[in-house]
Amino acid sequence: MVNESPSSGSSGSRSDGGSSSGGESSKDSSRCSTPVLDAERHERLREKMRRRQEAGDRWFSLEFFPPRTANAAVNLISRFDRMAVGGPLFIDVTWHPAGDPGSDKETSSMVIASTAVNYCGLETILHMTCCNQTKEELTAYLHKAKHLGLKNIMALRGDPIGEEWEEEVEGFNYAVDLVKHIRCEFDDYFDICVAGYPKGHPDAESYEADLRYLKEKVCAGADFIITQLFFRSRTFLQFLKDCQAIGITCPVVPGIFPIQGYHSLRQLVKLSKLEVPQEIKDVIEPIKDNDAAIRNYGVELAVSMCRELLDSGLVHGLHFYTLNREVATTEVLKRLGLWKEDPRRPLPWAVSAHPKRRVEDVRPIFWASRPKSYIYRTQEWDEFPNGRWGNSSSPAFGELKDYYLFYLKSKSPREELLKMWGEELTSEESVFEVFTCYISGEHNKNGHKVTCLPWNDDPLATETNLLKKELEKVNRRGILTINSQPNINGKPSTDPIVGWGPSGGYVFQKAYLEFFTSSEIVTALLRVLRKYELRVNYHIVNARDENITNAPDLQPNAVTWGIFPGREIIQPTVVDPVSFLSWKGEAFALWIEQWAKLYEEESPSRMIIQYIHDNYYLVNLVDNDFPLDSCLWQVLDDTFELLSAPTQC
Amino acid sequence: MVNESPSSGSSGSRSDGGSSSGGESSKDSSRCSTPVLDAERHERLREKMRRRQEAGDRWFSLEFFPPRTANAAVNLISRFDRMAVGGPLFIDVTWHPAGDPGSDKETSSMVIASTAVNYCGLETILHMTCCNQTKEELTAYLHKAKHLGLKNIMALRGDPIGEEWEEEVEGFNYAVDLVKHIRCEFDDYFDICVAGYPKGHPDAESYEADLRYLKEKVCAGADFIITQLFFRSRTFLQFLKDCQAIGITCPVVPGIFPIQGYHSLRQLVKLSKLEVPQEIKDVIEPIKDNDAAIRNYGVELAVSMCRELLDSGLVHGLHFYTLNREVATTEVLKRLGLWKEDPRRPLPWAVSAHPKRRVEDVRPIFWASRPKSYIYRTQEWDEFPNGRWGNSSSPAFGELKDYYLFYLKSKSPREELLKMWGEELTSEESVFEVFTCYISGEHNKNGHKVTCLPWNDDPLATETNLLKKELEKVNRRGILTINSQPNINGKPSTDPIVGWGPSGGYVFQKAYLEFFTSSEIVTALLRVLRKYELRVNYHIVNARDENITNAPDLQPNAVTWGIFPGREIIQPTVVDPVSFLSWKGEAFALWIEQWAKLYEEESPSRMIIQYIHDNYYLVNLVDNDFPLDSCLWQVLDDTFELLSAPTQC
Repeated sequence: MVNESPSSGSSGSRSDGGSSSGGESSKDSSRCSTPVLDAERHERLREKMRRRQEAGDRWFSLEFFPPRTANAAVNLISRFDRMAVGGPLFIDVTWHPAGDPGSDKETSSMVIASTAVNYCGLETILHMTCCNQTKEELTAYLHKAKHLGLKNIMALRGDPIGEEWEEEVEGFNYAVDLVKHIRCEFDDYFDICVAGYPKGHPDAESYEADLRYLKEKVCAGADFIITQLFFRSRTFLQFLKDCQAIGITCPVVPGIFPIQGYHSLRQLVKLSKLEVPQEIKDVIEPIKDNDAAIRNYGVELAVSMCRELLDSGLVHGLHFYTLNREVATTEVLKRLGLWKEDPRRPLPWAVSAHPKRRVEDVRPIFWASRPKSYIYRTQEWDEFPNGRWGNSSSPAFGELKDYYLFYLKSKSPREELLKMWGEELTSEESVFEVFTCYISGEHNKNGHKVTCLPWNDDPLATETNLLKKELEKVNRRGILTINSQPNINGKPSTDPIVGWGPSGGYVFQKAYLEFFTSSEIVTALLRVLRKYELRVNYHIVNARDENITNAPDLQPNAVTWGIFPGREIIQPTVVDPVSFLSWKGEAFALWIEQWAKLYEEESPSRMIIQYIHDNYYLVNLVDNDFPLDSCLWQVLDDTFELLSAPTQC
Repeated sequence: MVNESPSSGSSGSRSDGGSSSGGESSKDSSRCSTPVLDAERHERLREKMRRRQEAGDRWFSLEFFPPRTANAAVNLISRFDRMAVGGPLFIDVTWHPAGDPGSDKETSSMVIASTAVNYCGLETILHMTCCNQTKEELTAYLHKAKHLGLKNIMALRGDPIGEEWEEEVEGFNYAVDLVKHIRCEFDDYFDICVAGYPKGHPDAESYEADLRYLKEKVCAGADFIITQLFFRSRTFLQFLKDCQAIGITCPVVPGIFPIQGYHSLRQLVKLSKLEVPQEIKDVIEPIKDNDAAIRNYGVELAVSMCRELLDSGLVHGLHFYTLNREVATTEVLKRLGLWKEDPRRPLPWAVSAHPKRRVEDVRPIFWASRPKSYIYRTQEWDEFPNGRWGNSSSPAFGELKDYYLFYLKSKSPREELLKMWGEELTSEESVFEVFTCYISGEHNKNGHKVTCLPWNDDPLATETNLLKKELEKVNRRGILTINSQPNINGKPSTDPIVGWGPSGGYVFQKAYLEFFTSSEIVTALLRVLRKYELRVNYHIVNARDENITNAPDLQPNAVTWGIFPGREIIQPTVVDPVSFLSWKGEAFALWIEQWAKLYEEESPSRMIIQYIHDNYYLVNLVDNDFPLDSCLWQVLDDTFELLSAPTQC
């Protein structure tokens, strides 16, 4: 008999936990928590930083300022979506007291930052300045930020008004006052960032005094530091050393400013009271009218400075002052190898970063191409479904009254939409052609590509491309598809097209097809569907709330799911017959709001769209037999055949 | 343009529901309800009856009386389990005022009925008699029944004490008083059954008066009627006609008594004051000492009478007076084609019929062979997990102190266990042999079959048989397996061995293996597992709470799941690292409680079991890569190879 304990050879984590059995009953026994698919989703920003540093992963972050116009806001939000692809650890949005930063205007810092969190799923820091603002104002802003899902504040003093600045006795005079106020009023709720000045703040008595002041801000509760821009890596490295020397141990993130043009550089230097080193001036002055040349130089300079910082081993993350532009920063990041276009997604849909949506892991499939609308319509929910969608109650979706909310608006202006969707429609068939061109990628008869539809503001998803040929064929005949997915019987979770979730898993899908079509086709379709009764679930509705479905007991049907090592099953999308009725309202309204209204009232074009809106049905079909080839194309073939049969009555 | 609505050809259910969108936020937005896998599970008994009648499905039910001894209770419970296989709509348990029927004794009506509901998953009616009992006593019994999960009461008068019965002014004199009392105190909570007398109650003034009294019971709130036994189908059919004639519309279920012996017939006839028809007496008297002949005759007689009842088209269900015996009733049911041994299960484990467990659809795999222990240890939970097991809190399992609760006890007596597990053990290897014989089905060296182990009171499951060869091989070498399942990559849900849930679905499993083994083997195993780190999840513990696992964040791992048409994913079993620690306590204790204690204290046999208990580890392994051949056998092969390598240190 052997009597040694197996202490050698253990590769697992060992914890000497006592048995958890106990005689009490548990109120928590019905536990529906979300499995940790993406550990970072549950962490605070400071924890994410620490985890990255410990893992030796380098990261970057991006700074933006709020736009001046509503159109610029639309553009900025789609820039967020595009730049999110590169994998920033966070973005931050600056605060401009003159621009009504805490208001509900679509150009306010508050709204832009909350849109980034809620609709773009970005970890976001909202700047806030305290000078010339009352304690009550600041408290109100902070409450509002918290309510909107913001979890991080960059606490700044801000620029005093007028030339001569005087301390206000009762007011907030320094960033440290704001840090203290946040900790006092909101305890540990927010992660707090403060600014560091590698050359010392211009208003400071001395570099040393400024360092001591920085330490005060950290001691008051700041979690990390982002620095003002600088032009030489040694400037930052010296500053970092000096910070550490006086006992600042939190992360200090260098602020990187890729020079993008002569004028923007001059303006920034003036504002920040920094001096541009002579060697840079010498290069820039001769090419000051050549924007491309200056940008190229700026990228080179930034890349080499960032390399020096990273090579020092002391820098783990880089913060970029983007000036709301994409090209230069993206190029620097790509050349540094920090731009991580990882096609793998934690879930098939874009998750929101609002803390109350942390556990959300299942949504109806209908909003697949309109995730921002889904988030908007569910923003008032107190809890979000996880594990199961459930069928016990009708989910209360907020109404979508304003299709023109800047983050829901089409990125294309009216003129472009008219070119794509037809300056003039002559029949339902001209609508069929628009759908067909969107699917095929071919030019319409006026030579324009159709890159969006009212239900799909982006070109066809890669996954949908798998179904392109079949989709094209049916759209041509009046099956106007707006959402679809192929069936998948266990592809690796790392599959570049259909994969999602952690590696080592398998993903599955049931074939799904959703389309508008005429009542004539629906009549034939329903006859065909009798043959497929057990295999195909369908749901057919029109604008007048006629409603035909074979969903058993109005239960949701899981159409996407994944199996992962060491985890419970995840089923991120369902076809839910109850939610479909809410989606239907939105889907029908988009005909009118986004398409019909492009045309004059009473115009034939507008009447054609209105006719479709009034008379077509919205149909969804699920093929439950996911291991077999999808039968949905056969269902539609049979339908067309039935319609063309001579005995068809 | 077509303008007709698709009214023809609709094969689906059509409901003109308004849109469910609305502006309010929903408190119910996180909805974790269970999908309706088995509609009957959610229905009341009277709804089940109605559904069966509407569907034209014929059904049967079984009556039992409480046993006299604890051993008889053990036998009765395993009879319930065996007879449950045939698919009774319900069983009922009689009430004997003299036998302390409402007590907590293992032979009481209350305990037997609640065991049937909670542990055998049987819809159960508890009889209750009211005469000679106070209102307070009855109310207390009813509260207790409700608390125990009983939902159906058979309200009876009971037999008066003594020859001369007198009405008590304040008491409950008739069954109708009890019906009224239940409806008054418990509203619609219970389904109530009352007794009907096809020949009239012996104490009634007349047949007609008894019918009127029956109608009173129905009007007071009874949901259906079960009749006293009778000997001719025309007796029942006339009674049914008479019931309907006076306006009784609820179901009237005929009580069938297959004659099983001369003496039991005589006794019953005496009690019920019925007269045995002459044609039956003529047959029985000559063969009164030939039990087999009488039973055969009784079966024939019951079958032909039941056929006449069913053929009348007026009878949908048959209620059998079993006298706690199996053979005759089972034979009658099989010959009538009512015994439905449907291998399909709604879930892979036996569900409990307690109403609060209605939504339960996920359990840890560890109790797969001890479902009654799992139900016992979770009986105090207020809610049961569904959809997800979850990982947010440690589930509080009740402690299993009493391994001798009658429904947890081994069905085999001590002498048999000794024959199977060894009158005398000489080494750990003699224990290996017991496990190996259990798996292989071969006789042990003393010529006895090993049909159970402390962790498995039944012979090997059909599914486990698929792994028999591999299991035998590893048990022989000291991997003492107590639970396992093969991997399954999408078999039809109707598969006779591994299928479960509604038809048209697909079931999946990850390979699972759980075993006790020595620390020497564990040391080698852990070295081998490093190679499989991403593929295999393991959890290794011993009686001293040493605890080694690679489960990420102590998350549960789904190891059985099913995909069904029009439904959310069901994942009925998980390997949960937190619950495993509770199971471990029970699994180790079974060595001592069920095996070691068979031997004298200080005996070598007992010391061997004690040594294993103190020094072995309990190990579970999950192979996450379910679409590939299970690697768990390779893991164990590698382990044995490592152990036998000459350089092994």
